[in-house]
Amino acid sequence: SVTDGTTPSDDAKIVQFGGSALPQEKPDKQIVGGKGLGLQIMSGIGVSVPPGFTLTTPVCQEFQDSGDLSDEMWAAVREAVKRIEKDTGKGYGNPENPLLFSCRSGAAVSMPGMMDTVLNIGLNKETVEGLAKATNNKRFAYDAYRRLLDMFGDVVLGISHEAFERRLEMLKMKKGVRDDTDFSADDLEELCEAYYEVYAENDKSFPEDPFEQLKACVKAVFSSWNADRAIKYREINGIASLLGTACNIQTMVFGNRGETSGTGVAFSRDPGTGENKMKGEYLINAQGEDVVAGIRTPEPIARMKEVLPDAYEQFMSNVDILEKHFKDMQDVEFTVEDGKLWMLQCRSGKRTGQAAFKIAADLVEEGLCTPEEALFKVEPDHVKQVLHPTFSSEALESKEYKDNVVAVGLAGGPGAAIGKLAFTTEDAEARQSEGVILVRENTSPEDVGGMWAANGIVTSRGGVTSHAAVVARGWGKPCVCGCEQLEIDEKSKTMTVKRTGETFTEGDTISVNGNTGEIVRVAIETSSPALDGEFGKVLGWADALSDKCKVMANADSGPDATKAAELGAQGVGLCRTEHMFFAPERLPVVRRWILRGEDLDKVQEFQRTDFREIMAAMDGKPVTIRLLDPPLHEFLPRVQQVDDAMAKELGYSSAAALISDIESMHEENPMLGLRGCRLAIVRPEVATMQAEAIINAAADLIEQNPDAKPFPRIMVPLVGSIPEFVTQAIIIKRTAERIKAERNIDVPYEIGTMIEVPRAALISDQLASVVDPEDGQPLCSFFSFGTNDLTQMTMGISRDDSGAFIPTYLENGILEEDPFKTIDAEGVGWLVRHSSVNGRAASPGLSLSVCGEHGGDPQSIEFFDKVGLDYVSCSPFRVPVARLATGQAAVKRDGGECDVKRL
Amino acid sequence: SVTDGTTPSDDAKIVQFGGSALPQEKPDKQIVGGKGLGLQIMSGIGVSVPPGFTLTTPVCQEFQDSGDLSDEMWAAVREAVKRIEKDTGKGYGNPENPLLFSCRSGAAVSMPGMMDTVLNIGLNKETVEGLAKATNNKRFAYDAYRRLLDMFGDVVLGISHEAFERRLEMLKMKKGVRDDTDFSADDLEELCEAYYEVYAENDKSFPEDPFEQLKACVKAVFSSWNADRAIKYREINGIASLLGTACNIQTMVFGNRGETSGTGVAFSRDPGTGENKMKGEYLINAQGEDVVAGIRTPEPIARMKEVLPDAYEQFMSNVDILEKHFKDMQDVEFTVEDGKLWMLQCRSGKRTGQAAFKIAADLVEEGLCTPEEALFKVEPDHVKQVLHPTFSSEALESKEYKDNVVAVGLAGGPGAAIGKLAFTTEDAEARQSEGVILVRENTSPEDVGGMWAANGIVTSRGGVTSHAAVVARGWGKPCVCGCEQLEIDEKSKTMTVKRTGETFTEGDTISVNGNTGEIVRVAIETSSPALDGEFGKVLGWADALSDKCKVMANADSGPDATKAAELGAQGVGLCRTEHMFFAPERLPVVRRWILRGEDLDKVQEFQRTDFREIMAAMDGKPVTIRLLDPPLHEFLPRVQQVDDAMAKELGYSSAAALISDIESMHEENPMLGLRGCRLAIVRPEVATMQAEAIINAAADLIEQNPDAKPFPRIMVPLVGSIPEFVTQAIIIKRTAERIKAERNIDVPYEIGTMIEVPRAALISDQLASVVDPEDGQPLCSFFSFGTNDLTQMTMGISRDDSGAFIPTYLENGILEEDPFKTIDAEGVGWLVRHSSVNGRAASPGLSLSVCGEHGGDPQSIEFFDKVGLDYVSCSPFRVPVARLATGQAAVKRDGGECDVKRL
Ligand SMILES: [Mg+2]
Ligand SMILES: [Mg+2]
Repeated sequence: SVTDGTTPSDDAKIVQFGGSALPQEKPDKQIVGGKGLGLQIMSGIGVSVPPGFTLTTPVCQEFQDSGDLSDEMWAAVREAVKRIEKDTGKGYGNPENPLLFSCRSGAAVSMPGMMDTVLNIGLNKETVEGLAKATNNKRFAYDAYRRLLDMFGDVVLGISHEAFERRLEMLKMKKGVRDDTDFSADDLEELCEAYYEVYAENDKSFPEDPFEQLKACVKAVFSSWNADRAIKYREINGIASLLGTACNIQTMVFGNRGETSGTGVAFSRDPGTGENKMKGEYLINAQGEDVVAGIRTPEPIARMKEVLPDAYEQFMSNVDILEKHFKDMQDVEFTVEDGKLWMLQCRSGKRTGQAAFKIAADLVEEGLCTPEEALFKVEPDHVKQVLHPTFSSEALESKEYKDNVVAVGLAGGPGAAIGKLAFTTEDAEARQSEGVILVRENTSPEDVGGMWAANGIVTSRGGVTSHAAVVARGWGKPCVCGCEQLEIDEKSKTMTVKRTGETFTEGDTISVNGNTGEIVRVAIETSSPALDGEFGKVLGWADALSDKCKVMANADSGPDATKAAELGAQGVGLCRTEHMFFAPERLPVVRRWILRGEDLDKVQEFQRTDFREIMAAMDGKPVTIRLLDPPLHEFLPRVQQVDDAMAKELGYSSAAALISDIESMHEENPMLGLRGCRLAIVRPEVATMQAEAIINAAADLIEQNPDAKPFPRIMVPLVGSIPEFVTQAIIIKRTAERIKAERNIDVPYEIGTMIEVPRAALISDQLASVVDPEDGQPLCSFFSFGTNDLTQMTMGISRDDSGAFIPTYLENGILEEDPFKTIDAEGVGWLVRHSSVNGRAASPGLSLSVCGEHGGDPQSIEFFDKVGLDYVSCSPFRVPVARLATGQAAVKRDGGECDVKRL
Repeated sequence: SVTDGTTPSDDAKIVQFGGSALPQEKPDKQIVGGKGLGLQIMSGIGVSVPPGFTLTTPVCQEFQDSGDLSDEMWAAVREAVKRIEKDTGKGYGNPENPLLFSCRSGAAVSMPGMMDTVLNIGLNKETVEGLAKATNNKRFAYDAYRRLLDMFGDVVLGISHEAFERRLEMLKMKKGVRDDTDFSADDLEELCEAYYEVYAENDKSFPEDPFEQLKACVKAVFSSWNADRAIKYREINGIASLLGTACNIQTMVFGNRGETSGTGVAFSRDPGTGENKMKGEYLINAQGEDVVAGIRTPEPIARMKEVLPDAYEQFMSNVDILEKHFKDMQDVEFTVEDGKLWMLQCRSGKRTGQAAFKIAADLVEEGLCTPEEALFKVEPDHVKQVLHPTFSSEALESKEYKDNVVAVGLAGGPGAAIGKLAFTTEDAEARQSEGVILVRENTSPEDVGGMWAANGIVTSRGGVTSHAAVVARGWGKPCVCGCEQLEIDEKSKTMTVKRTGETFTEGDTISVNGNTGEIVRVAIETSSPALDGEFGKVLGWADALSDKCKVMANADSGPDATKAAELGAQGVGLCRTEHMFFAPERLPVVRRWILRGEDLDKVQEFQRTDFREIMAAMDGKPVTIRLLDPPLHEFLPRVQQVDDAMAKELGYSSAAALISDIESMHEENPMLGLRGCRLAIVRPEVATMQAEAIINAAADLIEQNPDAKPFPRIMVPLVGSIPEFVTQAIIIKRTAERIKAERNIDVPYEIGTMIEVPRAALISDQLASVVDPEDGQPLCSFFSFGTNDLTQMTMGISRDDSGAFIPTYLENGILEEDPFKTIDAEGVGWLVRHSSVNGRAASPGLSLSVCGEHGGDPQSIEFFDKVGLDYVSCSPFRVPVARLATGQAAVKRDGGECDVKRL
């Protein structure tokens, strides 16, 4: 039952495409597979693909059942071949003008483990000569032949590829050549003879009959469906619903058949700038390999108009059809054979961030797609590229840049920066106005002041999840970390390139490429990000489309909050009250409070200042403040740092006494220790002090300006039980009401809880419904999922220690994603959904959000949107990515997705 | 509506008891409260309680509504008083022979925060004289009077008790006396006058009218229902359904009214041995206080027969009635007033472990109760007492014991032991046959050999959850820990009593009392436990009654397993394969494997030996073996211990190299790090090696003896995802099948998973239903809940670090129980139930069990029984407690519970 048009029925055995094949209405991926579907679509919209046909999955099933292809079936294949012979004017097995085929497997989902590709099917001792004549290129013909012999032997007959390789190597030695390309036509003919010997050595023979070749290939494709690797892959990935694989037979075309042939590649728009102007190149009388090999220099695509005007016109029309159909900039490969254009491949083109935004905006402008569709033309990486200053592509290509790279480390934080070297936090802070790069062996929380002051950060130790890298990314600072090629000596204030001995000292200017990890010894000009124009337009669409899930930012200081607002955050979703405790002037005060119970008023004072700045920057928008969370020992000096002077500063008589107190606070598993609301229960002064600082800060703003609209939301961390939340919420509420009464200023505020301990998720209905016993009002206005801790506890994995096994897990397929990057929807996500449903059922107005790092991960955001969260919160520089992702998620949820890349 | 008999209706206002009151059919606790119910019951079964009446909770409600007691109500009270006057022959307010009352609150559940008690109501300036005459004891009368003045002023009128105390102290100074008891009658009269001044100073007056006194007391009781503390208590404990409190008015009786009066206390059976023979004592012409004060020596109860034969007979009959009614040994207080017996109090009597078992067995024997009921006569502490050798009560009372106690530490592990001092593990092992006590500053896993060898353990540092105490309890070794009064010097091998300087050296004999924490400088004889007789009989009933939940043991070695079988374990529920890695000859081998990847065959060899011993000890019963679980760095030396010799032994060229490897394995949060099945995934040799050792060990036993029935169950720890379990299960299964085939021996075995990571609980349905892709058979035969880790992760609490906040949590009522002792039913328990239900739904034959420490906790066992677990597993010495608890749980579940203690 050969079909050559309209919708194939479920039992269609052969579906044709290209040339004279009639378009089909609704090709079914289950029947024709993924590759077959793409060919059907291109064929159907009038793109000139080399003609061919697909043996469908029912044929595969039949083959599995009977172990063979029926005569009837094979007769149908021969019919299909005839159609192609007519379309191409070639003959399959015809020595004069041989028609050749490729054969590829293709199931409905892409699947490793199956047979991949056999090319040049149809060549034999006779037709190879015909091909040589037709292309006037014996070398090319024998090269194609020896490739067929190798591939066919390997994938169809199971002869080890190494056996062919050994013959190749032997011939190279014999001929004294180094590369395959050095072989002459005769050499390759000799190689083919040697390959025939390999067949003989393996008791196999190469079928000279082209149809026998074709049949063997088809059977190999269908057999490979049940190869061990393919079965295992389906098992692991739970793929059970597929019928089998399809098999695609397609005409081979050659661009090296003379001056009216050629080959080329093109982008339908400029992938660097996004400008709507085709960019591409082509070579006359050449194969695709020639372009890649770089032996001849291709010419710009526009020149093709002059030499091959018809093909050029057809090409332009084909590209236009493809752009309109796929609604995106296309990256295409094509071949002209004897003046006839064949489109070999098309896909969405890779592009820079700038181009991605321009193309997305233009496509809507041009009416090619809707804003909903346009959102999917931009990827998270595009946003990041646009967001950070970068070296332009011209600069990166320049000799000045390339010649001056002195070392390469890890790409710790994206973007580019120039500055003068500073080796200590103090220096970086002191010389901030000059523009500095902070250079350290590694960084610790005590260095945050200097990191904040610096344009960029370089460390010689620590990976991309080291303190330096994590903080840098949070702040959008370019960072090169773990650059072990450098010797950084903080005492002598020198940075030495180990390999060359070149030494830099304080004040020397360098450039840092956080995208590549490169360190450059001179100043390279950077281009600043533009947050308006197409960037603003596309993200504006995202905001408008995201009907449920908003984006807030994690911000711990006034500058953070300002940056977040600039990048489109609709509020602060997480302010870590303790984050600025490490500032050099504050740290001793904090330590005195922790160790001696003194100076609480001073701690409160600088908290109040911080909160005032943050709420001022976010005026009118909510600012969600988490009460003190980390274990207090995190703020203490390391034992090795303690000396008598420090002891005296902290009110101790001796270093030994201070050390003893520090050691007494040691914890075996600090992640699960005395932290979060436990701190405030064991040290009840904490909640009152912080609530006072927050409400007073808001009242200060209103006092200064009656139109100010500060809106603090106070969040209790690490809650695991009702009494934990209730006692804290009541302290906060009583304190807030007291201050409002004392100052006679009305400050709107909310109290809520983090959900980050699994137990809290399990009792979320109760948490949502607790009321103040005094006035009967609900105490809990919001849940914020702390998915970092929730992941650690639900999966029982300490993030800090996970490096010892997560890489192995990812390698072995035990984990599909790093759960600290993308939310584990099945486990952790179950708890998020469970709490959301139960929390909302108990309290319909409950606000739901997430403030873990997953809040900035697009895949996770899609999950959160589906669960119905009100907002995600992420670091300021992730805000634009998150805005894009929330828009995309809303479109996908509404079924408007247009994921053309998966076609 | 006064009722004096039959069932009180819901709106009954006053319910009478004692004397002529008619018995009621079904007194309602909601109406008469807990105390009222007890009085009704005693009155109803014919026990002669001093007559009185209960104002019921509807009266309290009426009072709350109207703010007062109605005239009608009060008229009813006066009627009720008349009945009592008739019964007692006294008159309320009658100066000749005054009737006095006590007044007590009593709701349906006991509740702190309400008014407690006012005694001697009815005394005034006139009646106090009458009481003095009637008792011929002015001192007594004024003592009663001043107590009334104090209590009434304090609880009814709100005058601070301290005001009365100050007057008392002033009078003491004035009279030059030290104790209250030194006051003369006239002193007390003067005190009463001073107390009247206190009333005046507070602008209050003491009502001389006895009925006014009574009314004020009743109102105070009802008002206290809404005192802040009571409201708060009800809020915190979620008590919402109660109507209010009842108020009990009861006649005061006096045993000091001459030679035909008296007072006494008695146990209906011997509380020390359980023998069915009354034990008690009495005093003629005395009040209860006199017995307590110890001024006069009481006489044995039997003597009372001679002097007060009628009262004695009535008493014996009353006690008999009580025993029969409450089906338990009774502890009673009584008073004889003018020849008339009054029973003041009865409750279940406290008893020793030996007595508890004998009484329980006897009660069944005597037909007083069923085995179901008898189980509830034994408490977990009783089991512990019987289980361990102890010093007899005679020995504990002896001068030899008391005079030789040299220090007191914490009771770390129950029981008593005698032995010669050993200061190191090596010494303890070498001199094991002599009987040693291991004495250390504290212990670490490396000391387990010595701990095993010792009769008892003493440490000078560390609390009751320290390593020493935990291991000791697991092994049933008496242990005194944290004995800071001792200076233990392991180098000089001396133990010095800090206070006295007394020094003990190696080989000195001491006795250790693990029940009290006492260390004795001489040998005190111990009594051995008897595991047969009544102990065996009662636990046999428990086993028989426990229809669902069996008891297995945690056992890591042959001797452990033997002990567990002896104590009634029906198998091993948890064998920690690594527990014996610390044995001195094994540790270096283990370390070489961990650090150098060498010697895995040796590790396997001693594992095989261990497994063989354990399965031999448990022949025919399941032995559940957990694969390697702890972080490997736990087995490494501390950095401080490393020297060149050790480095060389472990195959390192220098100490520095070894230290560097040790440090590289450091983890921030080892609890959530590289451990459990993660180890076996990162180091794939682990699972194969252990599975080989287990199956080979079982095969060895069958080879030696064809009738042997080893039954290993292999358990994968710390599973959090399906692929983790599946990869491990397949390795185990393939290994097992290979060995079975190689040796041609059929070994039955099962594979299962621990559920201890919250995520595993959430995907339990999938875990239960995974099948082997090769044969389609289920891979997971059992779940074992590791509730220690599950609690840590679900609640986010590191057990090791919880000491910093759990005590505060318990104090403040944020936690009701330590969740590591009793399962958190709401959170962790939810996950257990969820997994059980979903696991069984997916796989009906799935075996369910728990192997955390909760497996030995009776309250937790009741929960597990309800969830439907197949067994609990606990340390061998908890097995009898767990057997009792499973029996009790089954009875409770079937509604057969008879919790008389809560009456
Ligand atoms: Mg957190
Ligand atoms: Mg565990």
